[in-house]
Amino acid sequence: MSRSIYGVVMAGGSGTRFWPASRAHLPKQFLRITGRQTMLEQTLERVSSVVPADQSWVVVGRQHEAVTRQLLEGKPAHVLVEPFGRNTAACIGLAAIELRRRDPEALLIVLPADQYIADVAGFCRQLVSAAEVARRGSIVTLGVVPTRPETGYGYLQTGTAVAGEVEGAPYALVERFVEKPDQETALSYLVAGNFLWNSGIFLFTAATILAEIALHLPELAAGLARIETEGEGVLEEVYAGLPSISIDHGIMEKTSRPCHVFRLEVGWSDVGSWESLYELRSGEGDSAGNLLIGEGRLLVEEASGNLVQAGPGRTIALLGVEGLAIVETDDVLLVADLRRSQEVKRFVVRRDHDLA
Amino acid sequence: MSRSIYGVVMAGGSGTRFWPASRAHLPKQFLRITGRQTMLEQTLERVSSVVPADQSWVVVGRQHEAVTRQLLEGKPAHVLVEPFGRNTAACIGLAAIELRRRDPEALLIVLPADQYIADVAGFCRQLVSAAEVARRGSIVTLGVVPTRPETGYGYLQTGTAVAGEVEGAPYALVERFVEKPDQETALSYLVAGNFLWNSGIFLFTAATILAEIALHLPELAAGLARIETEGEGVLEEVYAGLPSISIDHGIMEKTSRPCHVFRLEVGWSDVGSWESLYELRSGEGDSAGNLLIGEGRLLVEEASGNLVQAGPGRTIALLGVEGLAIVETDDVLLVADLRRSQEVKRFVVRRDHDLA
Repeated sequence: MSRSIYGVVMAGGSGTRFWPASRAHLPKQFLRITGRQTMLEQTLERVSSVVPADQSWVVVGRQHEAVTRQLLEGKPAHVLVEPFGRNTAACIGLAAIELRRRDPEALLIVLPADQYIADVAGFCRQLVSAAEVARRGSIVTLGVVPTRPETGYGYLQTGTAVAGEVEGAPYALVERFVEKPDQETALSYLVAGNFLWNSGIFLFTAATILAEIALHLPELAAGLARIETEGEGVLEEVYAGLPSISIDHGIMEKTSRPCHVFRLEVGWSDVGSWESLYELRSGEGDSAGNLLIGEGRLLVEEASGNLVQAGPGRTIALLGVEGLAIVETDDVLLVADLRRSQEVKRFVVRRDHDLA
Repeated sequence: MSRSIYGVVMAGGSGTRFWPASRAHLPKQFLRITGRQTMLEQTLERVSSVVPADQSWVVVGRQHEAVTRQLLEGKPAHVLVEPFGRNTAACIGLAAIELRRRDPEALLIVLPADQYIADVAGFCRQLVSAAEVARRGSIVTLGVVPTRPETGYGYLQTGTAVAGEVEGAPYALVERFVEKPDQETALSYLVAGNFLWNSGIFLFTAATILAEIALHLPELAAGLARIETEGEGVLEEVYAGLPSISIDHGIMEKTSRPCHVFRLEVGWSDVGSWESLYELRSGEGDSAGNLLIGEGRLLVEEASGNLVQAGPGRTIALLGVEGLAIVETDDVLLVADLRRSQEVKRFVVRRDHDLA
């Protein structure tokens, strides 16, 4: 484990796809839907064999600072607070100046806080290889080998040749970052074989990414410089004026630096809906595929293929129902067709209640 | 309104068909499922134009005495407590001795506490006519004109001739009390036209029914005599030794006294399941037939034909689901196929929880 490897867990997301469990005050990364821990804690845990515990940094928005500090109480991970969300370029830039200040050799593994990976050991092996390539100055990403013509993700088009190899792990050159495709295009990507899902996981040294920011995002670079020289007191003022742009759009699509990609075949999921969570975890359900998330109790009479989330002290009784998502929270109960669960955001945008 | 008419509301039932709303400690008659009041209160209210308020008696088991007294607080209705449930013959006998003691002319209208009637005025007109016939010394019942080949009810076979008429309301002689039939038999009853559903509503004077008990149920008669002479102190001891028998089996099927029946066509229902409740009240639902019972809030996205019970402060969000019974209580949530809701008792008989 290299002393200069830092984890940067981006926990600024504010998803609505797990409503009513996810709410404005408690987005997906703070939910215990993929296990006993929150997805944020699992993300930290997952890289613990690669990133020393006290070199993990969680970047959150101010509105989630309290819940994050509470979660991480007693743990050596650090919290970096953004006054406003300004997308991933600013988030990564802020982490990069902080880490370069502490360690000029700092190498960042940037990870979204709300993804699931089945094969943690395989994932970490790829991270170690990727870190070695990133250490040489290139931008490295992990691309997920697609298993279906998914239209909900961005893609990476790779070169068809192997660009290099680290301890038996080959990597390719990224030729192009591609926006979410339509169904037909997604199918052609799946057939072509040199398109990977963009996982949003990146590795680079602080020096590399700050150099790229200086080249391609001068406004952000100027803001970061001001924060570096004037300190935290100007954070809010600087952030207020920053452009909101993703690292993909701001850097990856523009850089002339080689961007390398390792292939992930480790059961990756961005857990985009109750249905996708069900697919990940249905094997943990009963013999009829009824999956209970949380510490509630499930009573079943001729029901199958249901996902139920219920807290301690609650009993959910199912009779003759199939394929439902049943999610109980302190104030809301959702009962949805599991196959349509990605539509729960329809409740979030409604104005006739205050439960968004 | 005759001063000698008394309402005897039998509230000793312990149904399981509205689980999880109905529980051992809170059976159906104490639920607010057919309106803002409990079914027990609605039963009292329903006969208020026929029975003076202070001549209403509610007979309950000891385990439901507290909830009953709380419901009736400030109302002039009386409560009569049975130490154990000993079926309807004992219940009616106990009420009869109490009422004969207070009023030798007492005429009892005996009503189950957990039925629904849409046309209250029409019902009360039949009661007034029926009371006039009962005053002459016969046993009178109200039979419901069947609307389907129901196998869940007992039937009354009537004579095909009119036995008499009160203010334009004809009544017939009951030839036979019939047990719950099978499907084919029920269909033949429906076709025959001289079979009515047994509503369990009876009218007779206290003197009449006590004479019948003396003739056909000597053990009960002896027990009642002991309670009359020795007072409430022996109630428990006497009840412990009483036979458990219904008024139908114990008296109606044996009596040589004429038993008369008026036809009820007033939207009667015994509200036997969540489905039957939905059928009664679906007109009160939204335009897609989603019916909310209770003071919760319902949010609907492309859902139809669902029955939802939820209390104040709870929001239920439905997405893409159809024909469900969704019943929330403090500790249990039921999600069932509405058409199979009569099967909820399957949860009650299970031993793997304490929520019966």
